[in-house]
Formats: sequence, C-alpha cells, structure tokens
Amino acid sequence: MTALDAIKNRTSYRGKYENISVPRSDLTKIMEAGLSAPSGCNKQTTSLIVVDDAELLARLREVISPQVAETAPAIICVLTRKIIAYRDKCFNVQDYSAAIQNMLLAAVELGYQSCWYEGHVTDSDAIGRKMANILNVPEDYELVCFLPIGIASQSIKHADKKPFSERAWFNGFWRV
Amino acid sequence: MTALDAIKNRTSYRGKYENISVPRSDLTKIMEAGLSAPSGCNKQTTSLIVVDDAELLARLREVISPQVAETAPAIICVLTRKIIAYRDKCFNVQDYSAAIQNMLLAAVELGYQSCWYEGHVTDSDAIGRKMANILNVPEDYELVCFLPIGIASQSIKHADKKPFSERAWFNGFWRV
Repeated sequence: MTALDAIKNRTSYRGKYENISVPRSDLTKIMEAGLSAPSGCNKQTTSLIVVDDAELLARLREVISPQVAETAPAIICVLTRKIIAYRDKCFNVQDYSAAIQNMLLAAVELGYQSCWYEGHVTDSDAIGRKMANILNVPEDYELVCFLPIGIASQSIKHADKKPFSERAWFNGFWRV
Repeated sequence: MTALDAIKNRTSYRGKYENISVPRSDLTKIMEAGLSAPSGCNKQTTSLIVVDDAELLARLREVISPQVAETAPAIICVLTRKIIAYRDKCFNVQDYSAAIQNMLLAAVELGYQSCWYEGHVTDSDAIGRKMANILNVPEDYELVCFLPIGIASQSIKHADKKPFSERAWFNGFWRV
C-alpha cells in the first residue's frame, strides 16, 4: 500500500475488533513508525507502551470511561514529556501528534484499524493518569492518548470532510 | 513506496533545492493528504495555502528570519483556527500536526523533500503573522508552520534517534 493510499484509507474506527491477537512483530513495526516521526529540535518527547496482556487490558478498561475499544486485542498508550525545545517553546503536543499519525498509517498498511482517543484522557476526567498508574508510569511522563490496534469486525466509515476548496488555496487566502 | 518506507525515508531536509517547479497536481495531492488527517471531533481546524508564485515567495522570504528554505520552489503555509471540540478542549495543535505529518509523507512518496518549520514562526518573532499579512490571512486564522516543497539538490541526512528500547515498552513502563 502506498503512503497516499494509507492516508486516504485511514479512518477513526470506533467499531468492534476480531478476537485475534496482533503479532508482536507488527506492534513493534507500528511503534517504530511512531518513533520515526520528527520532533521539535529532535527532543524525542514521545514514548510508547503497548499493552497486549489480557489481564492488564482488563484493568485499563476499568478506568476508561466512557467505554471505548473494549474488544481491541492491543492498545498503544502514548506518553509525553514537556521538554523545552528552545527559548520557552515546547513542542511535545506536535511531537506526539506526528508520532500518532505515523502509527495510524502504519496500522492501516499492516491491515489493522485504530482510532486516536484523546478526549477524556487529558481533561478533567484524568483517565490518562489512572491508566498511567496501572502501567507504573512516573509523574514526569503524561499519558495523553491511546490507540486500539486490531482487525476490524464491523464496517469502516469515513468522516465527512469539507471540500478541498474551502480549506486549501493557491497563493493567498480566499474566504469561503 | 509503502507507507512504512515513506515513514522511514522522511527526514527534516534543510539543504538547497533544485530550481525545478513542483507541478500543481503534486502540490494538490500533498495538500489533499494533509486535509485527510483526522481532527478532534472532526472540527477540521487546519487550512492550507501553497505559494508557488515567484514574486510572492520572494515577499515571504523577506520576513522569514533566520533565512530558511530560500531555494524552495513552493512553500505550503499551515493555518489553524482555535475551534473548541468539546468542553473547553481545543485540539487544533494536534490537528495541524497530523496534517503536516501526512503532507511530509506524501511529499516523500512523490519524490520531494521538506521540513517542518515552526520555530520562530509562532514565538515572539511573530513571523507567522507577517507571512499571514502578505497572504491576506484574516485574524481568526493563525499561520503556525510552513513546509518547503521541492527536489533536494544536496545530500539527505537522518536525525539520530534514541534506541527503541529507551522509548517503547510492552505492558508497563520501564525506566531506562
């Protein structure tokens, strides 16, 4: 699958997953893709924990509310550190977002579906900290997102997007 | 080129570019890739302006300091809007970062090099606002990054990265 095809095929899959485990080799490829993303001043602020242990997945699901990704055979948790890149600027959000996008594309290429779950994780629900505690993540790392990885068992839908002409222009801004 | 190969081959290219223009069809494909990225609650906060007009490029270069991408035949400017996704959460940084990562990969697949320039654009140097003024970008849009697009005329280097084992783990956190 070409990169352009992976980009077009990627979608935010919120359906159920087949009860088929994901080989460690594939999980490693997906995480390697994530860690290959650029980071501001190469500070490499993003770290990853993949969970494929059934008991540990069950413990994580107890704190994920509202419940999502209940049937996923693996979940990649995305950790970040607020390391200053230069002056007072920290690009850790950009860094982990680029890493996540790489992982979503790698997952599609390898035949899996996923979804970028960040809402409720970092807001006042503090689900990220509850998940981090289960995984023994120290306080200087923040668990900001998680990505289920698995084979879809339901149909895949693409989000509706505004037309290109409302979001992209040549040589100047054009109000729509 | 597979998505995994594009992910591995992508690098932050800061060298000179060949004096060869980029076809509009390729620039469109790259921008379509960017707009295909996910966005928090599908708010589609990212917009793009590609500049390939020589006179306009020259005007942009007058405000870009320190000088970078001087020889690029095209520059994609990334605009964002701070639209609330839910509660008080706005995911516009995540949104444009995912869009940029898609564009960097699309560029690699199509034979181009690029680099994610954000430092100095959004900090107190306010280069982004100066560029935005040249492009008639209204105040409710912020120009946060730009990506040169072109064919490299110098050698391509990859940034050194920490080993996988220092940034990714299975089923728990392991301090290195």
